[in-house]
Amino acid sequence: MSDSKLVYAFGTGFADGNAGLSALLGGKGANLAEMCHLGLPVPAGFTLTTEICTYFNAHDEQFPDGFEAAVVAAMDKVGTEQGKRFGDDQTPLLVSVRSGSRASMPGMMDTVLNLGLNDVTVEALAKVTGDERFAWDSYRRFLQMFGDVVMGVSHDFFEEIIDDYKYENALTEDAAFGADDWRDICKRFRAIIQDEAGQAFPQDPYEQLWGAIRAVFKSWNNRRAITYRQLQNIPDDWGTAVNVQAMVFGNLGESSATGVAFTRNPSNGEKEIYGEYLLNAQGEDVVAGIRTPLYLSKKARLDSGLEELSLEEEMPESYAELLRVFEVLENHFCDMQDIEFTIERGRLFILQTRNGKRTVKAGLKISVAMQQEGLISKDQAVMRIDPMALEQLLHPTLDPNVHVEEITRGLPASPGAASGAVVFSADRAEAETALGHDVVLLRMETSPEDIHGMYAAKAVLTSRGGMTSHAAVVARGLGRPCVSGASAIQIDYDGRQAKIGKTILREGDVITVDGTSGRVLLGHAPTLEPELSGDFGNLMQWADKHRGLAVRANAETPAEAERARRFGAQGIGLVRTEHMFFDARRIFDMRCLILAADAKQRQTALDRLQPEQEKDFVELFTIMAGLPVTIRLLDPPLHEFLPHPEDDLQQLSETLGVTEEDLRLRITNLAEANPMLGHRGARLAVTAPEIYQMQLRAIFAAMRATQDNPAKIEIMFPLIIDAAELAYLCDMAQGLADEEEAAHGTRPEFTLGSMIEVPRAALLADQLATHAEFFSFGTNDLTQTTLGVSRDDAGKYMPSYVEKGFLADDPFISLDQSGVGILVDMAATKARHTRPDIKLGICGEHGGDPQTIEFCQRVGLDYVSCSPYRVPIARLAAAQAAIRQSKK
Amino acid sequence: MSDSKLVYAFGTGFADGNAGLSALLGGKGANLAEMCHLGLPVPAGFTLTTEICTYFNAHDEQFPDGFEAAVVAAMDKVGTEQGKRFGDDQTPLLVSVRSGSRASMPGMMDTVLNLGLNDVTVEALAKVTGDERFAWDSYRRFLQMFGDVVMGVSHDFFEEIIDDYKYENALTEDAAFGADDWRDICKRFRAIIQDEAGQAFPQDPYEQLWGAIRAVFKSWNNRRAITYRQLQNIPDDWGTAVNVQAMVFGNLGESSATGVAFTRNPSNGEKEIYGEYLLNAQGEDVVAGIRTPLYLSKKARLDSGLEELSLEEEMPESYAELLRVFEVLENHFCDMQDIEFTIERGRLFILQTRNGKRTVKAGLKISVAMQQEGLISKDQAVMRIDPMALEQLLHPTLDPNVHVEEITRGLPASPGAASGAVVFSADRAEAETALGHDVVLLRMETSPEDIHGMYAAKAVLTSRGGMTSHAAVVARGLGRPCVSGASAIQIDYDGRQAKIGKTILREGDVITVDGTSGRVLLGHAPTLEPELSGDFGNLMQWADKHRGLAVRANAETPAEAERARRFGAQGIGLVRTEHMFFDARRIFDMRCLILAADAKQRQTALDRLQPEQEKDFVELFTIMAGLPVTIRLLDPPLHEFLPHPEDDLQQLSETLGVTEEDLRLRITNLAEANPMLGHRGARLAVTAPEIYQMQLRAIFAAMRATQDNPAKIEIMFPLIIDAAELAYLCDMAQGLADEEEAAHGTRPEFTLGSMIEVPRAALLADQLATHAEFFSFGTNDLTQTTLGVSRDDAGKYMPSYVEKGFLADDPFISLDQSGVGILVDMAATKARHTRPDIKLGICGEHGGDPQTIEFCQRVGLDYVSCSPYRVPIARLAAAQAAIRQSKK
Repeated sequence: MSDSKLVYAFGTGFADGNAGLSALLGGKGANLAEMCHLGLPVPAGFTLTTEICTYFNAHDEQFPDGFEAAVVAAMDKVGTEQGKRFGDDQTPLLVSVRSGSRASMPGMMDTVLNLGLNDVTVEALAKVTGDERFAWDSYRRFLQMFGDVVMGVSHDFFEEIIDDYKYENALTEDAAFGADDWRDICKRFRAIIQDEAGQAFPQDPYEQLWGAIRAVFKSWNNRRAITYRQLQNIPDDWGTAVNVQAMVFGNLGESSATGVAFTRNPSNGEKEIYGEYLLNAQGEDVVAGIRTPLYLSKKARLDSGLEELSLEEEMPESYAELLRVFEVLENHFCDMQDIEFTIERGRLFILQTRNGKRTVKAGLKISVAMQQEGLISKDQAVMRIDPMALEQLLHPTLDPNVHVEEITRGLPASPGAASGAVVFSADRAEAETALGHDVVLLRMETSPEDIHGMYAAKAVLTSRGGMTSHAAVVARGLGRPCVSGASAIQIDYDGRQAKIGKTILREGDVITVDGTSGRVLLGHAPTLEPELSGDFGNLMQWADKHRGLAVRANAETPAEAERARRFGAQGIGLVRTEHMFFDARRIFDMRCLILAADAKQRQTALDRLQPEQEKDFVELFTIMAGLPVTIRLLDPPLHEFLPHPEDDLQQLSETLGVTEEDLRLRITNLAEANPMLGHRGARLAVTAPEIYQMQLRAIFAAMRATQDNPAKIEIMFPLIIDAAELAYLCDMAQGLADEEEAAHGTRPEFTLGSMIEVPRAALLADQLATHAEFFSFGTNDLTQTTLGVSRDDAGKYMPSYVEKGFLADDPFISLDQSGVGILVDMAATKARHTRPDIKLGICGEHGGDPQTIEFCQRVGLDYVSCSPYRVPIARLAAAQAAIRQSKK
Repeated sequence: MSDSKLVYAFGTGFADGNAGLSALLGGKGANLAEMCHLGLPVPAGFTLTTEICTYFNAHDEQFPDGFEAAVVAAMDKVGTEQGKRFGDDQTPLLVSVRSGSRASMPGMMDTVLNLGLNDVTVEALAKVTGDERFAWDSYRRFLQMFGDVVMGVSHDFFEEIIDDYKYENALTEDAAFGADDWRDICKRFRAIIQDEAGQAFPQDPYEQLWGAIRAVFKSWNNRRAITYRQLQNIPDDWGTAVNVQAMVFGNLGESSATGVAFTRNPSNGEKEIYGEYLLNAQGEDVVAGIRTPLYLSKKARLDSGLEELSLEEEMPESYAELLRVFEVLENHFCDMQDIEFTIERGRLFILQTRNGKRTVKAGLKISVAMQQEGLISKDQAVMRIDPMALEQLLHPTLDPNVHVEEITRGLPASPGAASGAVVFSADRAEAETALGHDVVLLRMETSPEDIHGMYAAKAVLTSRGGMTSHAAVVARGLGRPCVSGASAIQIDYDGRQAKIGKTILREGDVITVDGTSGRVLLGHAPTLEPELSGDFGNLMQWADKHRGLAVRANAETPAEAERARRFGAQGIGLVRTEHMFFDARRIFDMRCLILAADAKQRQTALDRLQPEQEKDFVELFTIMAGLPVTIRLLDPPLHEFLPHPEDDLQQLSETLGVTEEDLRLRITNLAEANPMLGHRGARLAVTAPEIYQMQLRAIFAAMRATQDNPAKIEIMFPLIIDAAELAYLCDMAQGLADEEEAAHGTRPEFTLGSMIEVPRAALLADQLATHAEFFSFGTNDLTQTTLGVSRDDAGKYMPSYVEKGFLADDPFISLDQSGVGILVDMAATKARHTRPDIKLGICGEHGGDPQTIEFCQRVGLDYVSCSPYRVPIARLAAAQAAIRQSKK
């Protein structure tokens, strides 16, 4: 610490720092220095580094050695620059003291303006500016701010004094106050400070300064700052810098003004001046919203039909200078800037510049335009877009301008928004939809049996389950908005109603589900349809040039497969064949198969199912001609296909020729304590090979039917735990291929692979790779087993685990790199040791998560596979990961 | 192969092989060679190695080069030894051709006796022996055996011919047949061989020999041999040796005999001659049981009251020689021998010796006695006992002499046997037991709510669940016999009956559950009580001297803790505190706690529970004074404590002041999709710290109450997945210890540790070890998560996985060393890297499995912990593991 430079001075044309030092100087301080280097009009000042903040908070609120002396020297220099002197009774220098951290934390920390005023300097200010009212107004503003921020006297006391004064003097608004009024107020303010703080307001400007600096450093650890950092993932040890800067005044009469501006339109990205200003006002007045700000450009004013003149018309010279500053800044920072400015008696000062926030759509437009203007490269354009933000472009969103009552919140499980009448069962959803009604399916949780209802519904809402619960996964696959784990909802299926606190939701009540934010709203809320502009296409094209990772989609239906191709998927990474069994007729056959009393009944069911499977595969292979299609054979436990024992079993019992009672008993006996770890996946094929055999025959037949323009077929076995088990299943597939060849003359060409979805498979990846030509990491199940966490039950504690920092993120949203990641990395290394050209992919929900994609790039996987809607996100994220890696 | 010696000759006083070559010569061949070296009377012969068998089966049933020549040379040597010649028409040498593998496979493979007989040599045999009937009887026996074993003519054809002949000639038994009868039979036998095999019986003795050798090698792969090897874990690639040996005859008149003998009593271990013999008979007659064999010693005959003379009385000289042989063999092999002998016209021949099978009790007695006789060392005595066999000594067993009808089988989940009336609910079990009735609790599966019923019942039977299902684990802990996963049982709770095939079992029907074998019997079967002899104590003492691993017990109740100490446990490795909540009153308080409407109700419940917990801990600590006690804080999901929503909720709803309907809804909402991966363990403490805090306070208070003679307290957090989570919980414990210190002046002394029971914890063991002073591997859950296998649901497929060789053993019985073992080893290494003196133990069910204990020794754990009944087994297994390791 003792060797570090503590104070970084700046002023027009010179600066100790620059934009590269934002870690040390904060974003604001670094950019102020940068602007000074560019020769822009910046009031002189100095920045106290974040290291001082860290030292201060670690050393019982002591400043490091030499700190005060350095500040005094810097202050003298500011005075010299501005032609004033701090505390001087003739030309007093006034300063602002503002926080400024590395990441923007708007409004979270404290600020003190007009510092340096006291009973003497206020008179000098009045003299120098020739505006006594201004001087006393400034002083009372300072007293108010200093009293609150530094001396801990609540804001309310000061407001009360002003209110009392108004009442006593029959004044209705601040504007009516004269110099004497403000002088009187100042006196009262000093008195209340003395009363409430137990000590006098300090007249010594340096005493004021030390107090203000302390207060700003301390405000790094106030509650709202801590909360904000948690939410934004900002490390606590960064600390804030403090900027001390000469005051300039936008409230020195009609030739003064203050405003904020964007160099482009942050809403749509158009290249036009965008912002607002106020005449004769201080910066905080714009923010406070007491007076309505005016437009900057004449065009904007005319477009809006406003009569009050724009800055362009009111102060053409300052406006022209502002335009020149905009150009300099955009050209220098190569990004849209968000600028604060003040005009003091006709003279323009820039107080802040930073990269401006923008909508996704605007971001796309700006990035593509700046590339075309030659400001940035295609790489840079690609890096500028947050992949996750693309979701806004791909799904309908709630109209932010319409207010609707929020009744509860859950997890944003599948993006998009939709409205409909609440129904509590999948059958009801289907029936109502058939009548032309929009419905929202509300369940505690969904199971594979509910898929027809989820398909029929406009949106899905569940009271349990996480971001990768069954409901979430299926809804994302189907492109239905979904809010999951809205745990405040208590559902009473029998009564066909749900309770949310005191609200009762009955069947038929209309609600809106916003799967993008997790909100559930009462009634119908209007939505905005997405539009994919040409900018989107351009950017995705640039992104694809950089990608190393291929991007595939998880898809079973023709609709999903077509959507996947449209969104640029390079094949299907996961066909969940079980999803093909859920239409009403097939599930009946499936149930006959599972509950069959003898081999004959079983065969009958299989004979009915096989042509259906074959038809599905023909459709998929046709859509995906030329691309890889990875087919996962039946995965879930058989009892997931069965009706509830309470359901009507008449038809089934007649078909199978057993009593309903016996059937119920059989169904009950098939239930499992922990189905996720149950009799499923490859385990089904080991105990009942007929189903996989049927599926393999259907695949081979479909390959024969599409042989003129074939897809590349990859057959995958789920839940593998041992090499011998995998070998056994590979033999089964090759044996059936032999039969196919014997019967039809040509042998189907396919590769065989294994899911890696339990830790044992990852640990034995080298052995599995002797049989598998590819691996697909099923990171959903691998996460569940590695952490011992059921995704359907995690909602009750996972938020606490993330909040307390036990886990970096919800491990079902972003891969748990420090835990599950070890296994994935280990398995990839072991697998390549056995088989260097093994193809490695990931097909869990994580396949569409940018952080996970970065991880996949790092460990060298070949592809990611995600739901069709996530494909563009994955393409962009993969490109960014590749660019970042190439830079290292 | 070409360089190997193919044929190993032997005869009295010389042998090419010895007892060390059993892998090559099989057990029988190696011991024959060894006996020849000892100068014992062994008929000359030669052994064909197992390598030939392997070659033969790998090369399309061809013999290796030089094989025939070597056999012919060896046969000539045998002839010279015996003064006969193979195929000679004057003094023909007859031989036996017998299998003999490395491990005993009694009766699984084929044998041919009297080989060398044909139409010519039979006449010579008649002349040489002077017994024409004997010669033709021997010939027909040979034809029959050769026809069946070598030429594939079913045994039945030969039996039928003899039956027909008896009928035609009005003969009632074989003994009435004369030489002419047998000659006639021989003719008919040759004819049927010609008819059925399509070729003539070979008259050429070498043709006979090659055929017999082939048949014996091939019989290595017959179905019953393969099945036997699977059951006994004998590798398929070992192959069998073949022994060709000169025939000697026990059926050459009244001075000939044959018998089997043990050098000690294999039933009780007493040092006395034990065995039986038959005058004028061949070896197979003893086995076939047509005539009742007689005693060897006079004492045994007198004890049994039999009139027929013993061998000692009948042939005193041969008996004396036999006694001498016994002594030589025991002194040489240092173990009880199981011997086959033949006396041919007064001359004794030893045909086989091997270590004899014995009961556990006999094994103990023999080992301890042999040590005292100076035959073996204490080490050797310890190594001789199969640890698992000790179970027979620790539990009641079914009287093997009583026949009771077996109705079904399940898994032998908790050893011991008991009878009682069937009941279908825990409540009913408790009520009936209160009335003084013995009951067996029959459930599909049990849950923690059933514990009072399991405690009340004499035995537990379930239709689902594996060897480590809830039922199995709890029953073992309680010392109740249990058969789990008896999947043929279909339970109808409403009808209070169960179906097993066509058998209906109604409430009140008496059954017997044999948890040692997995059998379920109809009615009451008498049992034998265990008795622990002084030999047991001696052996365990010797074992304890060798052990490196400490052995602790899993125990919660004072009864279990006392049993554990009695069985030699060195502390408690796992106190499952949740088991302390299951008595009727406490579970009510627990339910109030979980379902509490507000903080006050919650506190009331906690205030009632804390003194109860404290009382339990005081009892445990007192019993375990001076020893470590590892307390695992609450582990299972809260809903395991709740009643079924269908149960009577009146009292609970009144106490909590909510409607039953609301309560039902709350209970339903707490249910989980996969409770094993649910909201449990440390996760409870993170979301609802009150319960752990209550438990910690109770522990500290109990420590205070027992401070004069304290146990060593280790507090353990379950289901840890991250170091930050563990740190958080350690802080919680230390904070409460601070409070305890502040309130009572002394700080409780304890260590803090973590369960390692999900893969993530194992992967991050180095990080966890910064906070944990000990680890306990919860291998049950670690197995479930590493393999993705729910132990409660594994019954349906796990047997197939073991049978097909995908897994070496049921991973819930013996640790999956090649999968889960990797994680345990990795975690141990990582943990010691961070904290070299970290204490490492295992507390899953595997802690009592000898193979797992061997693994624990190898990876260097500090202790194993198992159910109290397993403690002696673990002590012995740990000693054996240490001895084996020290030898390497």
